Amino acid sequence: MTIGDASGRPAAARTAASGGNVVISVDAMGGDRGPAVVVAGMAESAAKNPDLRFIVHGPAAELQRLIGRRRDLADRCDLRDAPGVVTMQDKPSQVMRKGEGTSMWSAIDSVRAGEATACVSCGNTGALMALSMIRLRKLPGINRPAIACLWPSRNPQGFNVMLDVGADIRADAPDLAQYAMMGASYARNGLGLERPRVGLLNVGTEEHKGRPELKLAAELIEAGTSLGSYDFVGFVEGGDLPGARVDVIVTDGFTGNVALKTGEGTAKLVGDFLKEAFANSVMSKFAAVLAMTSLKRLQKRIDPRRVNGGVFLGLNGTVVKSHGSADATGVSAAIKLAFQLARSGFQERLAARVAQGPAGDMPAAQVRPGPVA
Amino acid sequence: MTIGDASGRPAAARTAASGGNVVISVDAMGGDRGPAVVVAGMAESAAKNPDLRFIVHGPAAELQRLIGRRRDLADRCDLRDAPGVVTMQDKPSQVMRKGEGTSMWSAIDSVRAGEATACVSCGNTGALMALSMIRLRKLPGINRPAIACLWPSRNPQGFNVMLDVGADIRADAPDLAQYAMMGASYARNGLGLERPRVGLLNVGTEEHKGRPELKLAAELIEAGTSLGSYDFVGFVEGGDLPGARVDVIVTDGFTGNVALKTGEGTAKLVGDFLKEAFANSVMSKFAAVLAMTSLKRLQKRIDPRRVNGGVFLGLNGTVVKSHGSADATGVSAAIKLAFQLARSGFQERLAARVAQGPAGDMPAAQVRPGPVA
Repeated sequence: MTIGDASGRPAAARTAASGGNVVISVDAMGGDRGPAVVVAGMAESAAKNPDLRFIVHGPAAELQRLIGRRRDLADRCDLRDAPGVVTMQDKPSQVMRKGEGTSMWSAIDSVRAGEATACVSCGNTGALMALSMIRLRKLPGINRPAIACLWPSRNPQGFNVMLDVGADIRADAPDLAQYAMMGASYARNGLGLERPRVGLLNVGTEEHKGRPELKLAAELIEAGTSLGSYDFVGFVEGGDLPGARVDVIVTDGFTGNVALKTGEGTAKLVGDFLKEAFANSVMSKFAAVLAMTSLKRLQKRIDPRRVNGGVFLGLNGTVVKSHGSADATGVSAAIKLAFQLARSGFQERLAARVAQGPAGDMPAAQVRPGPVA
Repeated sequence: MTIGDASGRPAAARTAASGGNVVISVDAMGGDRGPAVVVAGMAESAAKNPDLRFIVHGPAAELQRLIGRRRDLADRCDLRDAPGVVTMQDKPSQVMRKGEGTSMWSAIDSVRAGEATACVSCGNTGALMALSMIRLRKLPGINRPAIACLWPSRNPQGFNVMLDVGADIRADAPDLAQYAMMGASYARNGLGLERPRVGLLNVGTEEHKGRPELKLAAELIEAGTSLGSYDFVGFVEGGDLPGARVDVIVTDGFTGNVALKTGEGTAKLVGDFLKEAFANSVMSKFAAVLAMTSLKRLQKRIDPRRVNGGVFLGLNGTVVKSHGSADATGVSAAIKLAFQLARSGFQERLAARVAQGPAGDMPAAQVRPGPVA
């Protein structure tokens, strides 16, 4: 365990440059459950991935105490003293002005400086997006960055990608076309799908339905299939989010955020009703014991902690937002996602793809083969 | 069983006028499963409610054959010959021009003529709304009618109300304020809540979040609490839809439709995963047998057929839209809802409430006590 300050040049840069190691920058503060849970999540991931290294940002004394206890983890961490904390109540505009010295700012800056490949934070989503925008800047050619989430589905890969789930409450047709391209790239690198199927969220699958901007967006997304190396299945509905018709669901950040929270809330309701049902009688309690293995398997399939991690797309650097209320398992899932994306070279692939021009921007005749991102 | 044609004056008018009887107009065609399922649903409801009478619309020969078999039901039905059928593929604009003579048109006209108190259809939602608009007309003072659905929740009443779930993809701030008033009236008459708690769907509960029109809508809804006899809890999120913080959730028809279908899709996914989990081993199959009663209870709590029925609000007449794929149990649930609303005098109460002026339209000083709807 080495200690620097937020502005100091890292011992970890060495680690990042050396052999197969992947360095993840972790904001230890700002989550609802405090830094102990974040450190526990880091320890879980570190135990599973020997190539994983961390740069950890927060109040040095507190982090030293928490990490020092864990011998195996301590050897793989660089600490950066950042005494300030961004709270869930802070407004993004305030954090942009006064956020320097916070663990969140410092964690993003490790990616900016190139000493870490990706950043993970459990903090305030709006503030994290705002700081990521000003410190990492948008990729050239991107108008609105987006947050992509993974959604449990009936597809063989087990998950679908949905974006935007809350980076921006507005999205015009060209923005939605960029989301299609970025989402497809994420599905290719994060889920291993060679040619993802993209759908545009609407209130019906018929062509005449929905808002006028969605019709235009559908045309742009259709025009971008060659350039973006995806198939376009057309309009999809809310019921398709966990379905097998599509791998990537494109929508604006307002609708996507409502859908995400509705899905989570519904899954939790059904899960709670299930628990109540089994607690109902002696017979059902006995049945629950017999079915324990099966129920645990079900729980694992729908456990939101397993798919914890919204990825910010469209910036010069990868940022993974974990749930504010994530426990150690949730934090570990977010770190695993950041690790996978870092290892796959996702950021460079996406940047190369975007540099070719936004989807639908050029006629099909001009489309040239490029690196597959 | 009496038979008239679509334009004929009804024998059922007598029935409607007599003692406690409630007459429901049923469109027997247009659902995905055909008229046999609709008739089976009518029989289920009729068996439970002795005061229920029907006017049934569709091809007379087919209906006579289906209903004639059921002695108890036949005595309580008037048939109206309407050979045309609105299909799920028909565009609303076409149905508005050429829909006369269809069972859907005929079913709505029974409410228009006052011979039935409410209409139930499993057909094409867009066409049903379009026909309801031109035949029943909007209530004076209403700008955009809305479709309200019931959502399984943790509240004591078991359900929350959400609107709009798809009548109109747009909604301005004054429309949302009218939805609040209409939704509160529906919750009062349909769920028996004296003073419903209304929330406005947004991407966060903080006042500074969301689209500008939502801030204005929140002010209008807050200003309408006295006139509308509801409490306003402010912004709510997708996770609150099945929650206990709120009874009525107000949103535009695009967002509401996506949320509704997302919730249904998620509940179905979890249910299917649960079935797979129990089919996993001999032990878990045995456990499923032991837990049968509890699992059936759970299934009943989350069964979408139990809450089948979107209610069109803001028209001169009550129209209940059943799921296109509803089975007999689903149709029966939609008829039960229409029956409850008809019996409670909901339509007259809502009209009186709306006649007082749209929520937020007048300063608090001018608010006068009116009939509680």
